[in-house]
Amino acid sequence: MAGCASVEQNDAVHGPTTSSAELEARAHALDAAHGGTDLRERFELPAAVVYLDGNSLGALPRGVAERVAEVVRVEWGRDLVGSWNDHDWWDAPRRVGDRLAPLLGAAPGQVVVGDSTTVRLFQTLHAAARLRPDRHVLVTDPGSFPTDLYVADAVAQQAGWTVEHATPDEAAATLARLDEEGRPAAAVAFSQVDYRTGRLWDLPGVTAAAHRAGALAVWDLSHSAGALPVGLDEHAVDLAVGCTYKFLNGGPGAPAYGYVASRHVRDVVPVLPGWQGHARPFAMERTYEPVDDVARMRIGTPPMIALLALEAALGAFDGVTIDAVRARSLSLTGFLRDALEASVTGVEVLTPHDPARRGSQVSVRHPQAYGVVRAMAARGVVGDFRAPDVVRLGVAAPYLTHADMLTAARAFAAVLAADEHLDPEHAVRAAVT
Amino acid sequence: MAGCASVEQNDAVHGPTTSSAELEARAHALDAAHGGTDLRERFELPAAVVYLDGNSLGALPRGVAERVAEVVRVEWGRDLVGSWNDHDWWDAPRRVGDRLAPLLGAAPGQVVVGDSTTVRLFQTLHAAARLRPDRHVLVTDPGSFPTDLYVADAVAQQAGWTVEHATPDEAAATLARLDEEGRPAAAVAFSQVDYRTGRLWDLPGVTAAAHRAGALAVWDLSHSAGALPVGLDEHAVDLAVGCTYKFLNGGPGAPAYGYVASRHVRDVVPVLPGWQGHARPFAMERTYEPVDDVARMRIGTPPMIALLALEAALGAFDGVTIDAVRARSLSLTGFLRDALEASVTGVEVLTPHDPARRGSQVSVRHPQAYGVVRAMAARGVVGDFRAPDVVRLGVAAPYLTHADMLTAARAFAAVLAADEHLDPEHAVRAAVT
Repeated sequence: MAGCASVEQNDAVHGPTTSSAELEARAHALDAAHGGTDLRERFELPAAVVYLDGNSLGALPRGVAERVAEVVRVEWGRDLVGSWNDHDWWDAPRRVGDRLAPLLGAAPGQVVVGDSTTVRLFQTLHAAARLRPDRHVLVTDPGSFPTDLYVADAVAQQAGWTVEHATPDEAAATLARLDEEGRPAAAVAFSQVDYRTGRLWDLPGVTAAAHRAGALAVWDLSHSAGALPVGLDEHAVDLAVGCTYKFLNGGPGAPAYGYVASRHVRDVVPVLPGWQGHARPFAMERTYEPVDDVARMRIGTPPMIALLALEAALGAFDGVTIDAVRARSLSLTGFLRDALEASVTGVEVLTPHDPARRGSQVSVRHPQAYGVVRAMAARGVVGDFRAPDVVRLGVAAPYLTHADMLTAARAFAAVLAADEHLDPEHAVRAAVT
Repeated sequence: MAGCASVEQNDAVHGPTTSSAELEARAHALDAAHGGTDLRERFELPAAVVYLDGNSLGALPRGVAERVAEVVRVEWGRDLVGSWNDHDWWDAPRRVGDRLAPLLGAAPGQVVVGDSTTVRLFQTLHAAARLRPDRHVLVTDPGSFPTDLYVADAVAQQAGWTVEHATPDEAAATLARLDEEGRPAAAVAFSQVDYRTGRLWDLPGVTAAAHRAGALAVWDLSHSAGALPVGLDEHAVDLAVGCTYKFLNGGPGAPAYGYVASRHVRDVVPVLPGWQGHARPFAMERTYEPVDDVARMRIGTPPMIALLALEAALGAFDGVTIDAVRARSLSLTGFLRDALEASVTGVEVLTPHDPARRGSQVSVRHPQAYGVVRAMAARGVVGDFRAPDVVRLGVAAPYLTHADMLTAARAFAAVLAADEHLDPEHAVRAAVT
């Protein structure tokens, strides 16, 4: 098994008959084979924890604490307001956007960082409405993360859109039906990876279908960027948003990003116009005139400490291609699935087995999912719970190993074997997990 | 003159005949008299700088760097996603809002922190539109900070409002005229202090006039909060927003706040609905239902490092009333004006002399304002420039002394005497000041 790194081989040998010793040998062999993408030394993680919630809050990359201290003490404390020039704070939203762009498959000049994902999506969906003024239907997935649904509903109401619900797999048929009904879609708005199931949708195919129907393709990359190739330019995506505190490790609530394909940049009209997107922000003009590039999507002053923390955090990807991260991720999630199926009787994995449809997590359905998550955490394996019955094990490949996957599967099995998930301390659903 | 702290006495002796020695003696006496509110030790300021740009970016309060380091290394790095519960990240927008509230004259439960001032104002003006659905006019000041004007124009277009321009002094007459014309105003939206001139407008009077006309009063407190009493509850303000990185010293781009008077909280409908304002955010429901308190104005995940830095920064006001800060500020700005008039021939001060109309800055008009600001900075006195011809000297009272005011006035005079403001190095207008 040594050197066996491909998903196919990896999957070929899984099964409930695999022994614990065999799993351990496989974990060892796979970790050896994937040693080149083991970036754990780039992160400051507690030694005793297997952290499977990097899809909620990514781990702290090394160097970020030092950079933040410098921003606070030197740039803010010593150099004060001059830092807008002297440390180029002003251009950070675009500069960090350009730094992020390669991870998204985007050429420079199309990504801007700032605000929350919700605000970015609001700005972006309204931009879509203004790019397709003669169309009045938005197609979106009812299984999207709730804030995406709330924003879609709000923008629809404000822009005079009707919302049609469809999964990305149903998008082509829905777009065709809408065309037949004489009410063509203005846009589709989907997440590339489903936040609960970890299902990876067909971004290239859905984007192409949208374009065939004359609609724009808007993607939320919150659960895919930093974990797998997105290929925004290659697949001609129109608009995209995403958060940076999950697989991009930008820190809690780190500012989100928006992507506008260069062909649209001069036509997007910010519904939420701020002075930082003005053509001449320091002329203090009374009338809004957007700057002639993607920075027009900027709004107000960004939270600089958080934004510069994100910039430093992106250093964790230096010299690593997203394809290499993806290869490691697929091996890890494939092995985690195998280990769970070998260790936990009757486990129901929600995340697709097909690598072409698998994001970077393994979600498991369990009736006492909340208790399982809490009891696993007590054993040092941190995953998370998504209502009503999902145990979500996020796999941020850069800082996890196959040995960690085995530890997680064993913890899951041990929790169930000892009924720890039924312990009242673990079984009560708190307000926040 | 020793012990002479009141503005009236202070102003009574000013004049161009005051000698340099007399000014120095006054500075010394006033600093002695105001020793109880000298909080410079609470800030980490470079010793060689007189910092008169705290109305753009406030200085770094002591303890913030340590707190930020703890947030990064311990809360993010060690405790990871559990910090949402264990360190109560989740409630921070409301908790920090409540901590800020006393400085605004607001009872708890009415202030929420997060997003930029621009986004907060957008959310707030749309809320005003929805609170007054039968009215279609917004009264605002054409001299407002540009982003306020852009947002007012955008919201007006989206909400079907007409914008009427008037200064706060003209508000009552404008509201009466609009009533006569049968098109009553939905709201007035003003800044309490003009960002260029430092003029303090009559918030109580204008708010009362708005209410007499059945309109809402919306205030931007960016240039007043932290410098002078606002009295939101006392004066029955309806809605307010403000930034926290000026006189509140929250750090570059620190998140802004929004205030909703408790009588309106259950009626404001967020135009930009985010999952963090949902009644049951972790139930992941498909339909938006706002929580039953001011947290409904929350949108997406706030930038936690920046938000917790702000929380720590507010400690600089511990044990100090805003009235005490205001008394010190008036003495400082009064003396700065005197010192400028005594030191600089023909200086034209834009900021009103009347303490009831004076914010916490002294703005001076000069045809080479940009060169003056740059040349003063080279002498260690940091003010800022506002186009086209304003030298803006912000006075953040907690960390400035009367001696600093005299140093600033002398630097201004020295720059002009040596024509340093005409030096090409200083006279060229850069993109950002």
